[in-house]
Amino acid sequence: MQNLRINAERLWDTLMETAEIGKTPKGGIKRLTLTDLDRQVRDWFKARAEEAGCTVHIDDMGNMYAIRPGRNNDLAPVACGSHLDTQPTGGKYDGILGVLAGLEAVRTLNDAGYETEAPIMVVNWTNEEGSRFAPPMLSSGVYGGAFTLDWAYAREDRDGTKFSEALEGIGYRGTEPTGERPMQCFFEIHIEQGPILEAEGKQVGVVTDGQGQRWYEVTFTGFESHAGTTPMPLRKDALVAASKLVQGVQDIAQSKAPDGVGTVGLMEVSPNSRNVIPGSVFMTVDFRHPDDDKLSAMDRELKAMAAEIAREQGVEAEVKDIWYFPPVRFDEDCIKAVREATKLCGYSTRDMVSGAGHDACYIARKVPTSMIFAPCEKGISHNEVENMTSEEAEASANVLLHALLSRANA
Amino acid sequence: MQNLRINAERLWDTLMETAEIGKTPKGGIKRLTLTDLDRQVRDWFKARAEEAGCTVHIDDMGNMYAIRPGRNNDLAPVACGSHLDTQPTGGKYDGILGVLAGLEAVRTLNDAGYETEAPIMVVNWTNEEGSRFAPPMLSSGVYGGAFTLDWAYAREDRDGTKFSEALEGIGYRGTEPTGERPMQCFFEIHIEQGPILEAEGKQVGVVTDGQGQRWYEVTFTGFESHAGTTPMPLRKDALVAASKLVQGVQDIAQSKAPDGVGTVGLMEVSPNSRNVIPGSVFMTVDFRHPDDDKLSAMDRELKAMAAEIAREQGVEAEVKDIWYFPPVRFDEDCIKAVREATKLCGYSTRDMVSGAGHDACYIARKVPTSMIFAPCEKGISHNEVENMTSEEAEASANVLLHALLSRANA
Repeated sequence: MQNLRINAERLWDTLMETAEIGKTPKGGIKRLTLTDLDRQVRDWFKARAEEAGCTVHIDDMGNMYAIRPGRNNDLAPVACGSHLDTQPTGGKYDGILGVLAGLEAVRTLNDAGYETEAPIMVVNWTNEEGSRFAPPMLSSGVYGGAFTLDWAYAREDRDGTKFSEALEGIGYRGTEPTGERPMQCFFEIHIEQGPILEAEGKQVGVVTDGQGQRWYEVTFTGFESHAGTTPMPLRKDALVAASKLVQGVQDIAQSKAPDGVGTVGLMEVSPNSRNVIPGSVFMTVDFRHPDDDKLSAMDRELKAMAAEIAREQGVEAEVKDIWYFPPVRFDEDCIKAVREATKLCGYSTRDMVSGAGHDACYIARKVPTSMIFAPCEKGISHNEVENMTSEEAEASANVLLHALLSRANA
Repeated sequence: MQNLRINAERLWDTLMETAEIGKTPKGGIKRLTLTDLDRQVRDWFKARAEEAGCTVHIDDMGNMYAIRPGRNNDLAPVACGSHLDTQPTGGKYDGILGVLAGLEAVRTLNDAGYETEAPIMVVNWTNEEGSRFAPPMLSSGVYGGAFTLDWAYAREDRDGTKFSEALEGIGYRGTEPTGERPMQCFFEIHIEQGPILEAEGKQVGVVTDGQGQRWYEVTFTGFESHAGTTPMPLRKDALVAASKLVQGVQDIAQSKAPDGVGTVGLMEVSPNSRNVIPGSVFMTVDFRHPDDDKLSAMDRELKAMAAEIAREQGVEAEVKDIWYFPPVRFDEDCIKAVREATKLCGYSTRDMVSGAGHDACYIARKVPTSMIFAPCEKGISHNEVENMTSEEAEASANVLLHALLSRANA
């Protein structure tokens, strides 16, 4: 079996085929969760999985489990998967590669006439993106116990449609309680969505950790006044304070290099007029670190810094914690299975930390889990120009195939 | 005549009476230029000026000249005035005080039965605010030769209505060519719109200079990428660059203390999403200084700094000059007339620089001109809560009265 390889052309063709469902003029995909386009791609996946000999189960969050039987179907399946929904201006690979590589692994085993000991399962998790129904990773979150079913059902989109109604509407509300489908372990391929693999010329990333995240909303309140008539020492300029915090967020993140990152992505200035000194600024801070102690230190430093800047500038600062997602350490055996599969196939590799959140991060709360990263062009993702090569997709799928095999026959 | 004083109660009553025209629930005024409300206040002013024995002339920009005859009507009038239009959420004093104090001076002379040698003239300049038709000070600009009539006529509001159409629409398009109405000199009372007089407890400001202004639009272009997956050293964060420039603008202005000011009032971050590294930032810079050499130095320093930040941060910077208004040195004799009137009335005073633009700044290009500042509460202006006391209005009007008298009898 060591020489078994997936069919790269077939994998690429399925990526291109599904990319037609919701394709955008710029070459991306707009396939928001629980829309009719989502139904179409689900129907496609279900039909192809059944053609490949799988039985497809749907749970009450609409998660889809395509199971290829093993020799011993009393064993929990060895699972893989990701998501088929996209951002409003999403690309062709984010999530989709993880599901279709699983399908390709099943097809490859079929072609080889190879029966694994444990069943193989390919999962499509509902609403990973969170663009239509916040938060992201909603259904893997229910599976992993982070959210209750009722809470998830009550999420609403901007039109006031509830998640449960939309799920019902596309005919993908199953009866099986989410979280009860057994798995022996779970592997997720995902594009890196960052520039590291490409910059270092590595073919595959062995993902050992998911970064912890802390999100904040910061408001500085100064005093709105005339840009021409207010001398510098009499100003209470909220934007000057906010700018100092932007620098501070940089300094905090850089002091936790190489794994710490910190970003101010959103800033709103009020009244935002060229000749008025800003009276208030609303801004967000996003901190990530794989080590929870370091992440806590970043938290403390941010709060101390905001207070210090406020004092110095004579303005007020409010720092609100709005999200905390603890770091994830993936399962050692799963990581090892991925690493060995990479070696077996002869791909260049490096260990990495996932900077983004993924379904795997919630599944890891319940099931031994790890991830495989594939490079993507310039690290661009959540963008219609998101791109990767067929060879890059192929390498990650081969690693997935052998990781699945090693666990399914273990 | 040295003991002559204006009627403070009557001045205040006219301020309150005109404040009814376009009054807002929060106690301010919304009286945009060339609207029907503007027509109403113009009609009111014309009627009151005629009742006070003035002849009212209208030029082809709608500027109104109310002339109280002197003993020698061959002499050019000694003029004062300001504007009756307001910001969309303006206050009761900005501009209006300057016109109504002129009317009050005329009424005071009438009450005293006093005839000046030269005529006295009170002017209402059309569209000082520029809120409906940009730029501000449009009609004093035509008077002073900064803009041509045709260019001014072609300005459009957001609905596509031309200035000339709106002027015609309210019946205030005169035939006299703007700029031909002679004046011996011009005085403008205005609220300070800044905090200095109040902070120092001075009753009246003798304005010696108008600050020069330079306005810029700066765009930093970096690279939009994922906040979780892009390591700090690989980022091209446009907001980090923009924040450094906010600090730089502060440093440049503070190095030109006490008269230099610098403000970033407007900033727009793109894509402005909490977990995306900003790909571009658009921001404005407003520099002011009464000394043109210093203002030029600020200009050079800004451009060098933006280029340096861009280099350092690996982003691109574009700095566009969008406006240059040279510093104004007001007329020595006019300044002296104001200073002596202040002394005569026994008011506490200080020399000051006008940080804002005013009609007087354009009129000064053609006619000997200076300004008188009255304090306003906390320096707040362009705001419905703009406030001042009757005593503050009175003091400035008394200074105007005696400045007019000294020049009209000279």
